[in-house]
Amino acid sequence: MRLRPTARSLAVRLVGITLACVAWNQLGGQAFGQETPATPMATSTLAVDVDTLWTCIAAFLVFFMQAGFAMVETGFTRAKNACNIIMKNLMDFALGSLVFWLIGFGLMFGITYHGFVGTSNFLYDAGDNGFHWAFLLFQTVFCATAATIVSGAMAERTKFSSYLIYTVAITAIVYPIFGGWAWNSLFSGGGGWLEGLGFHDFAGSTVVHSVGGWAALAGAIVLGPRLGKYKGKRSNAIPGHNIPLAALGVFILWLGWFGFNPGSTTAVGGGSFAFIAVTTNISAAAGAVGAMACSWIFFKKPDTSFTLNGALAGLVAITAGCDCIPVPYAALTGLLAGMFVVGACVLIDKVRVDDPVGAISVHGVCGAWGTLAVGLFAKETGLLAGGGASLLGIQAIGVAAAFLWAFPASFGIFYLIKSTVGLRVSEREEIEGLDLTEHGIYAYPPGFVTGAPIPIEPLLPVASAPLVTFPARPAVEVG
Amino acid sequence: MRLRPTARSLAVRLVGITLACVAWNQLGGQAFGQETPATPMATSTLAVDVDTLWTCIAAFLVFFMQAGFAMVETGFTRAKNACNIIMKNLMDFALGSLVFWLIGFGLMFGITYHGFVGTSNFLYDAGDNGFHWAFLLFQTVFCATAATIVSGAMAERTKFSSYLIYTVAITAIVYPIFGGWAWNSLFSGGGGWLEGLGFHDFAGSTVVHSVGGWAALAGAIVLGPRLGKYKGKRSNAIPGHNIPLAALGVFILWLGWFGFNPGSTTAVGGGSFAFIAVTTNISAAAGAVGAMACSWIFFKKPDTSFTLNGALAGLVAITAGCDCIPVPYAALTGLLAGMFVVGACVLIDKVRVDDPVGAISVHGVCGAWGTLAVGLFAKETGLLAGGGASLLGIQAIGVAAAFLWAFPASFGIFYLIKSTVGLRVSEREEIEGLDLTEHGIYAYPPGFVTGAPIPIEPLLPVASAPLVTFPARPAVEVG
Amino acid sequence: MRLRPTARSLAVRLVGITLACVAWNQLGGQAFGQETPATPMATSTLAVDVDTLWTCIAAFLVFFMQAGFAMVETGFTRAKNACNIIMKNLMDFALGSLVFWLIGFGLMFGITYHGFVGTSNFLYDAGDNGFHWAFLLFQTVFCATAATIVSGAMAERTKFSSYLIYTVAITAIVYPIFGGWAWNSLFSGGGGWLEGLGFHDFAGSTVVHSVGGWAALAGAIVLGPRLGKYKGKRSNAIPGHNIPLAALGVFILWLGWFGFNPGSTTAVGGGSFAFIAVTTNISAAAGAVGAMACSWIFFKKPDTSFTLNGALAGLVAITAGCDCIPVPYAALTGLLAGMFVVGACVLIDKVRVDDPVGAISVHGVCGAWGTLAVGLFAKETGLLAGGGASLLGIQAIGVAAAFLWAFPASFGIFYLIKSTVGLRVSEREEIEGLDLTEHGIYAYPPGFVTGAPIPIEPLLPVASAPLVTFPARPAVEVG
Repeated sequence: MRLRPTARSLAVRLVGITLACVAWNQLGGQAFGQETPATPMATSTLAVDVDTLWTCIAAFLVFFMQAGFAMVETGFTRAKNACNIIMKNLMDFALGSLVFWLIGFGLMFGITYHGFVGTSNFLYDAGDNGFHWAFLLFQTVFCATAATIVSGAMAERTKFSSYLIYTVAITAIVYPIFGGWAWNSLFSGGGGWLEGLGFHDFAGSTVVHSVGGWAALAGAIVLGPRLGKYKGKRSNAIPGHNIPLAALGVFILWLGWFGFNPGSTTAVGGGSFAFIAVTTNISAAAGAVGAMACSWIFFKKPDTSFTLNGALAGLVAITAGCDCIPVPYAALTGLLAGMFVVGACVLIDKVRVDDPVGAISVHGVCGAWGTLAVGLFAKETGLLAGGGASLLGIQAIGVAAAFLWAFPASFGIFYLIKSTVGLRVSEREEIEGLDLTEHGIYAYPPGFVTGAPIPIEPLLPVASAPLVTFPARPAVEVG
Repeated sequence: MRLRPTARSLAVRLVGITLACVAWNQLGGQAFGQETPATPMATSTLAVDVDTLWTCIAAFLVFFMQAGFAMVETGFTRAKNACNIIMKNLMDFALGSLVFWLIGFGLMFGITYHGFVGTSNFLYDAGDNGFHWAFLLFQTVFCATAATIVSGAMAERTKFSSYLIYTVAITAIVYPIFGGWAWNSLFSGGGGWLEGLGFHDFAGSTVVHSVGGWAALAGAIVLGPRLGKYKGKRSNAIPGHNIPLAALGVFILWLGWFGFNPGSTTAVGGGSFAFIAVTTNISAAAGAVGAMACSWIFFKKPDTSFTLNGALAGLVAITAGCDCIPVPYAALTGLLAGMFVVGACVLIDKVRVDDPVGAISVHGVCGAWGTLAVGLFAKETGLLAGGGASLLGIQAIGVAAAFLWAFPASFGIFYLIKSTVGLRVSEREEIEGLDLTEHGIYAYPPGFVTGAPIPIEPLLPVASAPLVTFPARPAVEVG
Repeated sequence: MRLRPTARSLAVRLVGITLACVAWNQLGGQAFGQETPATPMATSTLAVDVDTLWTCIAAFLVFFMQAGFAMVETGFTRAKNACNIIMKNLMDFALGSLVFWLIGFGLMFGITYHGFVGTSNFLYDAGDNGFHWAFLLFQTVFCATAATIVSGAMAERTKFSSYLIYTVAITAIVYPIFGGWAWNSLFSGGGGWLEGLGFHDFAGSTVVHSVGGWAALAGAIVLGPRLGKYKGKRSNAIPGHNIPLAALGVFILWLGWFGFNPGSTTAVGGGSFAFIAVTTNISAAAGAVGAMACSWIFFKKPDTSFTLNGALAGLVAITAGCDCIPVPYAALTGLLAGMFVVGACVLIDKVRVDDPVGAISVHGVCGAWGTLAVGLFAKETGLLAGGGASLLGIQAIGVAAAFLWAFPASFGIFYLIKSTVGLRVSEREEIEGLDLTEHGIYAYPPGFVTGAPIPIEPLLPVASAPLVTFPARPAVEVG
């Protein structure tokens, strides 16, 4: 009863936004435009077809990262919230795909208003241009990555309907606006103000990961910690329920990153994507080693969670400079990222921000580190390559800009949600688990979830009552 | 003892069929042929090599859908039948790969007998033609997809050996015959009668999914519902045991569909595969939204199972028209598919057909809907594009033909199996679980499966008896 | 406390080796070189770019096999060791990636010293040559595959730090030395002695799988069986804890093999990769059928574990001859591999070598079989194609060489480790499980792991103590 209006009003809002976009698009979104749009590669040749193919395949791999995030976040949290975290991951991709096509792509890649915001290409239609469709898909899966980072830090206590509202906000506005600052020229003839300065973020350490990470930080702060996480001076560990699934998620993410970084060439000419694949892999490997060594030295045991997050930290960190950091420095970038992620997790926990999966450390902190690493290690232009400190300064501006945009914007949106429809489930719902209270389902047999003895099925189950029934839902079994 | 003859007789039958095919192939399968076979792209150029590469990569992605189906079906059913459902998924692909190469490919893509059945290309050998090998592989994984759809609807009660017999039947005969009606001209110089009418099913909403879905319907009817599913006027929910695994399966299927639909171009020229990837993704996203909204409104909660199936419904529905339905209509096609799948599940349950994973609704119903959607939404030729109703009529003929072929043919085969070797396990076997009775194994520690207390391992396990022993099987531990 | 020195000394050792390599590289590793290195495809054209792309995509698929191995090995072993096996799989890839780049690639593909060992290309830098970077990545993921095979056979009882030492040894020395014998000419102008004889191992049945398998055999022998595995005359089955996860792993491995075998063309010209994809798939399918039939006949039930391993056996066996064995013989190769793997598992168990996942049988035995199968079935040159027995003889030499190199070398290394830092955990640690004792973590809620009743969470968890706490590790929760 309570939820019905939410679902409806969400739908109403989406339809309204859509219609507004269509109207804007038709009535001259180009009024603000300074330049005519670039139309790269209009003629279809085999070379263009191959670029299109590579961009699509890379997009498929990046899409699969959604499965990786879903498994990592599910595995690192409790069984009673597993379906909820999966629903969040699934729906931020589903809504994100629709919303980015409707609005986000235009704000990010439309003709820009002084390099700050795109004003065309809403409800984007590429016509017969295969490469442009591939570009749309590739950017869509990138946007969804930024969105889904947030769900991990807000796991186990966020109201589902409120999370969906934020998903629309980040994929429609927060991510695309910043993305346009750094990447608008990839598509439009114009360009964002940040890339105009010379900011280099090849595949999105800042654009995707830090933006997602700072939004996650805002969300975790506005939400507050999970019940039982902090008591007096103590921070309690709340162990995840399925580490093998989380590990599978990390392997899937690692695979997906081979689309994320090398695919950001969106072209095969020169084969630079292969170099990028090597730096990506080496950094991830070094990140795992760095985090493992760090946890081994400080906590006496090689910790599984930290090591898994270390690999991700290495991946996030090399993302900005995967095209220009030499392999030995890529190893160093990853190694340090692996160490930083351990430190950042400890620190963030010290200040009592409850991030169940370490998303802020992995994506926010290591995204910032990797962006700065470009300024240090880049061939020719980096500080250690004798290129002086100017690039490092520009990178720092980009890192700061990302924080100063994504954190307050997200904080404001979350605060607004909290003040109106509410952001957090009730205490009782949190204790019972969001699977049951939000979705009316158990992820596993009930005993495994609740700790109560698993009911033994009677010999002839014909006579048995169903294990889970809800009056409102007809007793229909659907796979 | 009882099963040994089954395994042997199955092998004998396979060998017999193989020999018959070889003989037929040698002795002039072309006797019935009306046309000489087309030999497209005989010369190898870079363009052909790239087409071959794309077709192979797409086939790999479609292959991976087998993992997706296995995880979806495992997760949505009970722990006691997990190994059994996996064996069915694995073996329908394994047997299907062999049987389709031996027989099915020839019936589907051989020189046709009046557009009804292929008569050559058994034990297909493409020689040095890489593209033709790629085509064989691509069609093989398509065929296996149709086969594996059936296992979900028949889960938790079907005899393993009998399922294998049906697998041979669908991959050898049921699927290839219909496939040839719609797609024979893709390879042969001739063409199927249905495509001759102008039937448009780009990647198989009907050819693959509806055929699989109607076969699943036949199987579920012949089998009857699971014990305890229906009691008096009541339909009992039988919850799945591992929703995160099912969700992973859906993500894998979504990934695989990027091979299924865009790969059906089997060529890169013009880059239309990128447009197809976008319509596919948008429809899936809208399907998830549609099913979630529907379940939220009618059952008061956003249901995880329905939402997951909604994404699949969107994917199935757009499969027929992914190449010709504009993106906004692709969103509509998916949205409606997501709603239809909820309705169809409720309806099919009302008529007491027990489909544990919703396969009939997802693949049968939404496959039919998507095929009709082509008649409504297709660029230029669709009803809403001002193309008149003729295409819609032809699509309806195709939809009807699929049902009228696949349902009775499968029903007959299942009925024959039921009347001879039996189709269903005994009541006791069903209660104990098919893992133990059919395969002598537990998928998880026994206590998790049966609900009995999990036996605590003694401190020194040297003294402990093995948890599972079968007199007939030597106590060998194999991974 | 005890482990800290291990982590540190490992790091010190790695740094030392690295510096030595750098020095060697700079100071004239080419001193021993007989030939100048080949520089194939220096100019970048679309054809080269496409080859580079295919090699990279194939490498990504092979990388994903790491996830497959991790899931197979986790699923087939006990819940109390799940995190440990995952850490081993993750870290052998991470360390292997670094070590192979530093040392292994040079030993395998550097300018050879009389065809026995490479002497250049340490810390490999391909500069602007995209294809060479792709080649490095492809070879890196191959090397890691050989390394990770070992972890399965040594599961549930090996000390983590000692395993890491071996990982460095196999990726730096054992694998690359043999690899150079068979494949050096793929990159260098010279060539290994074995390929000089005419040895044919297209994608590594012997080079990767047998080498890994014989190393696994050495490890399992030096380690000894798990506690409780053999008692008196009895061999006790120790069932795995998550067969669906293992099955997912097999599907992932099957997918990855489409990169492993077809990708070994490292080129698209002629489209032979498509033929290879078909032979690979058919052999895997037949392997599953063979193992299932075998287990059905001998053990009365179609065994899930054996069938899954049968598919892998088919994949391993066809790897050597996937490019030259006709499809019908590929089916036979796989079918026999599926049967051999059952027999080998029984036999290896009979001689009391405890291989929890069957790695020795799958990779060692079936790798050898597949290499010999080339001598029997290869087009034109095989015994059954009328090519005489000479190829078969050469293949036998290669099979023997692999055993005579990998087994004693690995045995020596394991023995050395055992004699110094120790190879096996203590009896108490083995009983408690390596997750808790080596990594301080449970893979699942403790009750599921230990068999003790799962503790019911109190209604208000605020008051509850954390489920897992270790004094040495601060109570930080990190995902």
